[in-house]
Amino acid sequence: ARRGYPEAVYCSGKTPAQVAAIAAAVGQRPDVITLFTRAGAEHADAVRAALPDAHHDPDAALLAWPPALPPPAGGTVLVVAAGTSDLPVAREALLTARYLGREADLIVDVGVAGLHRILGHLPALRAAQAIVVAAGMDGALPSVVAGLVTAPVIAVPTSVGYGAAFNGLAPLLAMLNACAPGVAVVNIDNGYGAGHLAAQITAPR
Amino acid sequence: ARRGYPEAVYCSGKTPAQVAAIAAAVGQRPDVITLFTRAGAEHADAVRAALPDAHHDPDAALLAWPPALPPPAGGTVLVVAAGTSDLPVAREALLTARYLGREADLIVDVGVAGLHRILGHLPALRAAQAIVVAAGMDGALPSVVAGLVTAPVIAVPTSVGYGAAFNGLAPLLAMLNACAPGVAVVNIDNGYGAGHLAAQITAPR
Amino acid sequence: ARRGYPEAVYCSGKTPAQVAAIAAAVGQRPDVITLFTRAGAEHADAVRAALPDAHHDPDAALLAWPPALPPPAGGTVLVVAAGTSDLPVAREALLTARYLGREADLIVDVGVAGLHRILGHLPALRAAQAIVVAAGMDGALPSVVAGLVTAPVIAVPTSVGYGAAFNGLAPLLAMLNACAPGVAVVNIDNGYGAGHLAAQITAPR
Amino acid sequence: ARRGYPEAVYCSGKTPAQVAAIAAAVGQRPDVITLFTRAGAEHADAVRAALPDAHHDPDAALLAWPPALPPPAGGTVLVVAAGTSDLPVAREALLTARYLGREADLIVDVGVAGLHRILGHLPALRAAQAIVVAAGMDGALPSVVAGLVTAPVIAVPTSVGYGAAFNGLAPLLAMLNACAPGVAVVNIDNGYGAGHLAAQITAPR
Amino acid sequence: ARRGYPEAVYCSGKTPAQVAAIAAAVGQRPDVITLFTRAGAEHADAVRAALPDAHHDPDAALLAWPPALPPPAGGTVLVVAAGTSDLPVAREALLTARYLGREADLIVDVGVAGLHRILGHLPALRAAQAIVVAAGMDGALPSVVAGLVTAPVIAVPTSVGYGAAFNGLAPLLAMLNACAPGVAVVNIDNGYGAGHLAAQITAPR
Amino acid sequence: ARRGYPEAVYCSGKTPAQVAAIAAAVGQRPDVITLFTRAGAEHADAVRAALPDAHHDPDAALLAWPPALPPPAGGTVLVVAAGTSDLPVAREALLTARYLGREADLIVDVGVAGLHRILGHLPALRAAQAIVVAAGMDGALPSVVAGLVTAPVIAVPTSVGYGAAFNGLAPLLAMLNACAPGVAVVNIDNGYGAGHLAAQITAPR
Amino acid sequence: ARRGYPEAVYCSGKTPAQVAAIAAAVGQRPDVITLFTRAGAEHADAVRAALPDAHHDPDAALLAWPPALPPPAGGTVLVVAAGTSDLPVAREALLTARYLGREADLIVDVGVAGLHRILGHLPALRAAQAIVVAAGMDGALPSVVAGLVTAPVIAVPTSVGYGAAFNGLAPLLAMLNACAPGVAVVNIDNGYGAGHLAAQITAPR
Amino acid sequence: ARRGYPEAVYCSGKTPAQVAAIAAAVGQRPDVITLFTRAGAEHADAVRAALPDAHHDPDAALLAWPPALPPPAGGTVLVVAAGTSDLPVAREALLTARYLGREADLIVDVGVAGLHRILGHLPALRAAQAIVVAAGMDGALPSVVAGLVTAPVIAVPTSVGYGAAFNGLAPLLAMLNACAPGVAVVNIDNGYGAGHLAAQITAPR
Ligand SMILES: Nc1ncnc2c1ncn2[C@@H]1O[C@H](COP(=O)(O)O)[C@@H](O)[C@H]1O
Ligand SMILES: Nc1ncnc2c1ncn2[C@@H]1O[C@H](COP(=O)(O)O)[C@@H](O)[C@H]1O
Ligand SMILES: Nc1ncnc2c1ncn2[C@@H]1O[C@H](COP(=O)(O)O)[C@@H](O)[C@H]1O
Ligand SMILES: Nc1ncnc2c1ncn2[C@@H]1O[C@H](COP(=O)(O)O)[C@@H](O)[C@H]1O
Ligand SMILES: [Mg+2]
Ligand SMILES: [Mg+2]
Ligand SMILES: [Mg+2]
Ligand SMILES: [Mg+2]
Ligand SMILES: [Mg+2]
Ligand SMILES: [Mg+2]
Ligand SMILES: [Mg+2]
Ligand SMILES: [Mg+2]
Repeated sequence: ARRGYPEAVYCSGKTPAQVAAIAAAVGQRPDVITLFTRAGAEHADAVRAALPDAHHDPDAALLAWPPALPPPAGGTVLVVAAGTSDLPVAREALLTARYLGREADLIVDVGVAGLHRILGHLPALRAAQAIVVAAGMDGALPSVVAGLVTAPVIAVPTSVGYGAAFNGLAPLLAMLNACAPGVAVVNIDNGYGAGHLAAQITAPR
Repeated sequence: ARRGYPEAVYCSGKTPAQVAAIAAAVGQRPDVITLFTRAGAEHADAVRAALPDAHHDPDAALLAWPPALPPPAGGTVLVVAAGTSDLPVAREALLTARYLGREADLIVDVGVAGLHRILGHLPALRAAQAIVVAAGMDGALPSVVAGLVTAPVIAVPTSVGYGAAFNGLAPLLAMLNACAPGVAVVNIDNGYGAGHLAAQITAPR
Repeated sequence: ARRGYPEAVYCSGKTPAQVAAIAAAVGQRPDVITLFTRAGAEHADAVRAALPDAHHDPDAALLAWPPALPPPAGGTVLVVAAGTSDLPVAREALLTARYLGREADLIVDVGVAGLHRILGHLPALRAAQAIVVAAGMDGALPSVVAGLVTAPVIAVPTSVGYGAAFNGLAPLLAMLNACAPGVAVVNIDNGYGAGHLAAQITAPR
Repeated sequence: ARRGYPEAVYCSGKTPAQVAAIAAAVGQRPDVITLFTRAGAEHADAVRAALPDAHHDPDAALLAWPPALPPPAGGTVLVVAAGTSDLPVAREALLTARYLGREADLIVDVGVAGLHRILGHLPALRAAQAIVVAAGMDGALPSVVAGLVTAPVIAVPTSVGYGAAFNGLAPLLAMLNACAPGVAVVNIDNGYGAGHLAAQITAPR
Repeated sequence: ARRGYPEAVYCSGKTPAQVAAIAAAVGQRPDVITLFTRAGAEHADAVRAALPDAHHDPDAALLAWPPALPPPAGGTVLVVAAGTSDLPVAREALLTARYLGREADLIVDVGVAGLHRILGHLPALRAAQAIVVAAGMDGALPSVVAGLVTAPVIAVPTSVGYGAAFNGLAPLLAMLNACAPGVAVVNIDNGYGAGHLAAQITAPR
Repeated sequence: ARRGYPEAVYCSGKTPAQVAAIAAAVGQRPDVITLFTRAGAEHADAVRAALPDAHHDPDAALLAWPPALPPPAGGTVLVVAAGTSDLPVAREALLTARYLGREADLIVDVGVAGLHRILGHLPALRAAQAIVVAAGMDGALPSVVAGLVTAPVIAVPTSVGYGAAFNGLAPLLAMLNACAPGVAVVNIDNGYGAGHLAAQITAPR
Repeated sequence: ARRGYPEAVYCSGKTPAQVAAIAAAVGQRPDVITLFTRAGAEHADAVRAALPDAHHDPDAALLAWPPALPPPAGGTVLVVAAGTSDLPVAREALLTARYLGREADLIVDVGVAGLHRILGHLPALRAAQAIVVAAGMDGALPSVVAGLVTAPVIAVPTSVGYGAAFNGLAPLLAMLNACAPGVAVVNIDNGYGAGHLAAQITAPR
Repeated sequence: ARRGYPEAVYCSGKTPAQVAAIAAAVGQRPDVITLFTRAGAEHADAVRAALPDAHHDPDAALLAWPPALPPPAGGTVLVVAAGTSDLPVAREALLTARYLGREADLIVDVGVAGLHRILGHLPALRAAQAIVVAAGMDGALPSVVAGLVTAPVIAVPTSVGYGAAFNGLAPLLAMLNACAPGVAVVNIDNGYGAGHLAAQITAPR
């Protein structure tokens, strides 16, 4: 594990056979948690053939082995998804943070078109030491959240939307221009990176 | 006046001499209101030399002649500026709506980084028949406003910001992807167009 | 229903199973009209399994339940499509306006390459309180229409075309730069948003 | 003269001294017409110092020497400018066509926002063998003109406009996607190229 | 037929059933040539079911009915393709020009990486009254051809290439910036438009 | 002060008179630290006229009042600049972190073209709780640094460079695609945002 | 063979039948090496039907006939791939260099996120006369390598990555802005071009 | 000197005072050649105040100290400029190659619009071991040159042109898509990088 954190195997673009070979090697190192990210159905089958007890979250397209979460330490992470379509990215962030050893929770469907939804979660927002916000389309939610809390906000633009969303470019630009300070941006759809960053920010000191 | 509305002279890119010649001709038609938009200091001097009683709003870079506002009719227009830097665009919209015969008001500095600011204006927002929202950077305000009201929201992206704001591209894309329905977008910095559209939407029926 | 208007379920990107679950819940609330937009054949099957009497317009990829249109009120909406390829977007706008309670009509194949076609509809254009114009390629029709009427024009760029149309970017930019005032732009292919905005603009006062 | 046509010296980016040296050399070849394009005030002074009788059109930023137009031959060219701001580009095209030996005329301020303006020129449009159309902003005029005539239309996008006009990108894309066949596009602001192409198209056979 | 030229039916994006219906109607008007462009295998089957004697060129994805070419008149058109991958676009241009009544020929595989290839065709190039040049990748061929001839060159960028060709953007920009005058640009892959324009330019006077 | 942190006044785009008025108001609130960012020479004069003892860092274009740094608390921040041209952005980050109450240091001229330079600072890099990396051109430094440490890296693309750097777009994209996890990206040239985020990440728990 | 080097047949976009025909012709010219690049499974079958002893490297999607490598001459080429996903591009470069007559080796998985990996290959890097570096995502590796050696570095951006990698645009821009001199850039995924250039640079003098 | 080559000081963006300080330090190291690139008039004055005998080439905006060229070794470099406007970039490349110890020559005004111009230099082109080609607008010249020679071609796009040249983007894309192999691309206007690369490629072995 690079720098004390789990290893990650990015499955997209790899053949099931390649993933199977990696999974077999992973099985030799039970002391290190390995995450298989962006794993489609065939990738998942390949992993589970080698590592039958791997934890699999199909929504996040993620598998983890060994399956047990490490005991939580450090600060808490809150993952917020603007809409249900942002859920795969949000769950990838959630599980990454948990397998890096953080306590982490998820709030969904709190887009800014209905402010009462996000405002109804103020206590949870203010209790977190780091907040991941996944949003597509106008990418407005991180600006609003960052204005409500003092913890750093990690903004993940998603490719949710169509037309002038340009596969996530619109929320990416919006988040880079967030009108509140305290917003850290990662790549479009990069739930893994967001969860990793949140875990680093909240690491035990 | 095209279709019963005031004439508009777009001064940017015209020489003061060209504007002066137009102003002289305008002086022959006191029955029609003429707006001189994007008028710099030299343009303004040229207009006032020919039309000394023209109304001049330097912040909006706009002059109007004859100077008197028409008596208000139709619905009311509310212009909202996210930040003080959006003021020139917002005032251009405000004055355009007024010279097209609408009652119109202005609210400034209500960006989403401090939600209490916009929420403190809910009664005014809900009383308007059309709302113009000028915002740069993340362009998040129109989404929030459109979620709070049933009237149409006219979103004007501004070129306020730097870097990945790309001279207004970021808020333009955000506004086109507003997550609440009811958002009409006009060109970057196009306060004149926004005010005109607001006046058309609220025209007496 | 948010703010007194129908609910909308955006089906694209949802699984048929997810849509089925939503449709079942919708069936508990016959007092609110729900629109299922961007519904492919499998989405439509899922909706109709739960709501057999739902109205289905395959061209618009839209279903509505309860199927009855509300009694029309407010101003009238006219939807104009430049070419037959723009029809899906245009019909989505048409049906949205109708289910939001407006009287709405449709004119097709009146692109600017044959001006007599659009000029032949001048009376209908001038009778409408709001006009939706769907066009791809050069996006020239909204400028022409806005020059012929005093009502606001809602321009919907479509992804019709190829090459330098860049999936709707060309007409989007053209519409944002319409040389006549009174043009409101929505996202590429966003017939739902255009119809919604038209209904808001023409709401009974 | 390359291929029997006048020589052209593109002055923009050259120092006045460089232009002066070229003008001196040009004076040795009175048998060939030379056009100095994009000539600012200092460039013009440099040309006229060496070639005092050069024809100078400041609006077109163009000088020609020897100053006499060649006797017209071939078909006729019509240059059409959507707005007065397109005039410099239009005049550059007009003069280029004339110095290449064509009869050429100019019509200004016939943008599509007022269709009666362009429709009022139908006879002239239909009499030309090639039509140059210069337009910025929405770039809609070439589509309309091409639908009215059978002669080829040469569309010149101009950098007139602001914001999402993106310095001529918007009309460039619109013109490349003209919904009528028969539209040839040249570079943004390239009046010289448009006039040259028009002269080639209408060359005597 | 608009303005005396054949009708064109753009099949891409239409269902075979829609094309079949159009073909049936076309069969009622044998006095007008109709071109079916961008016709895939299923579109072609639909056309030939209704119009069994239609001419079909699968490489150009084009069908024509009635199948007979009109007797050639006017100037001659030469179509030049940089590489064999540009052939579909080139043949679409070739056939369009022929069905619009021009004598037209085709030269293939004369890219600038081997100058002797294009230079070996100088007599044919100089004999044509209009030249269509289809090229992808660097889009360099139109500049070279335009420097060799006095006839107008119609440049068609193609989507041939990968990576930074960006689906035809690279040759489109190159062609708009051709360093020789006399280059008319049409949309990416628009062989139909190029052939149409060539036929208009070479129309009998 | 929003959420317990200093206030920030973004001077760019404000007139000296506007900044003077704000500075006068700031003088009434000595309990809150106010930062004046992007302050040119005239802005600085205006601030110092009202607040003569303000701290001024011309390289960072930043002023602070009251001038005393708060006593450091929380983790330590390290700011790293790839080249000397990145220094203004780096210093803006440095001072922001310090005025938000962190101990912060600066390392300059450690671009990846000479790896020994950054590798020579490994102990300092590994001692920091948050690292800000400012780099233009290829934006490669954050990837390298993030691979060497476990603390979060805040990457600030700068507009240093020319041509295909596209005013900071190149390093922005590179940083969003950093091949090591743990990289948080902010807007181009946004030293203030980077320093603010670093201070939030290292806040006392 | 153009200029003494092997011929190359770019298979992508050709039908298997077209490739089969070319392969048959190639069989008549055993004196020239022919490379079939971007050959999918069906293309490979077509080549091997005509040329059964052709060398086939499925990872590189490349076939060569006659299969024997020419005896190496000139300098040595080193191909470096940042990650395993860059392997197809890297192998295409490797084989191209070898079939052009160079001694060439390959090093894989030495991305900058773990500097020890590339630093562990310093002797091999410094022994090469030309180095090809294939990298996607942040495209940082060529800058680092160019800073370690004096030989020219040929940088190939790959389309590996997602989101803001924009199909290779991010590493392309990074490589064009490499902060060390000595970096030559080729098109995205252009392993063939990179290997060809490396072989030219290291040609026997 | 990094890796045995001259040092380079990039003056653009540095103040004259900063350049003066660097020049003073440079004066202490006469054993290393230092190049001052992108040096405006004030930068040049600052350098010459400290290093009166520095060689200064105003066209290239470059100074070198000590002024003597090193004795040439290795292969020869040929620099080719498409037009006179490309001269500053071409001369920067020329002088860089010479101060890195290569024999280097320059050919100007050989754009592809007049092929005889470049074809007239075939012997010189074929005698060089590396060729730098600077071109703006359509960027077609490197493709043509690469097809005529076996030596590697280093293509430098220049920002010469206007409109859709987009400050060098058009030739940059064209060069990356050169239809002849053997083209290495560097950043827009990067004459220094091109000359450096050429010198590395032709280094004595
Ligand atoms: N979903 C993901 N998105 C972005 N980067 C990832 C993702 N999953 C893994 N990675 C990164 O990719 C590396 C593994 O890549 P690979 O060796 O190709 O499997 C890990 O070290 C992570 O830094
Ligand atoms: N206004 C213009 N726009 C585009 N190209 C031009 C223009 N004027 C001249 N040219 C072209 O530039 C060439 C002269 O460029 P130069 O040798 O730099 O003066 C001529 O042969 C024309 O092809
Ligand atoms: N291949 C093509 N590319 C561009 N435009 C075309 C093409 N084929 C036909 N058209 C244009 O599209 C119109 C027909 O479109 P439609 O009515 O949708 O079939 C014709 O009038 C032509 O102007
Ligand atoms: N004209 C130039 N274009 C691109 N890079 C340059 C240029 N001149 C110098 N450089 C690079 O910039 C570095 C010097 O940058 P600096 O330390 O900021 O003076 C050198 O090592 C070169 O790699
Ligand atoms: Mg915050
Ligand atoms: Mg609303
Ligand atoms: Mg109107
Ligand atoms: Mg026509
Ligand atoms: Mg020519
Ligand atoms: Mg790290
Ligand atoms: Mg090197
Ligand atoms: Mg070559």
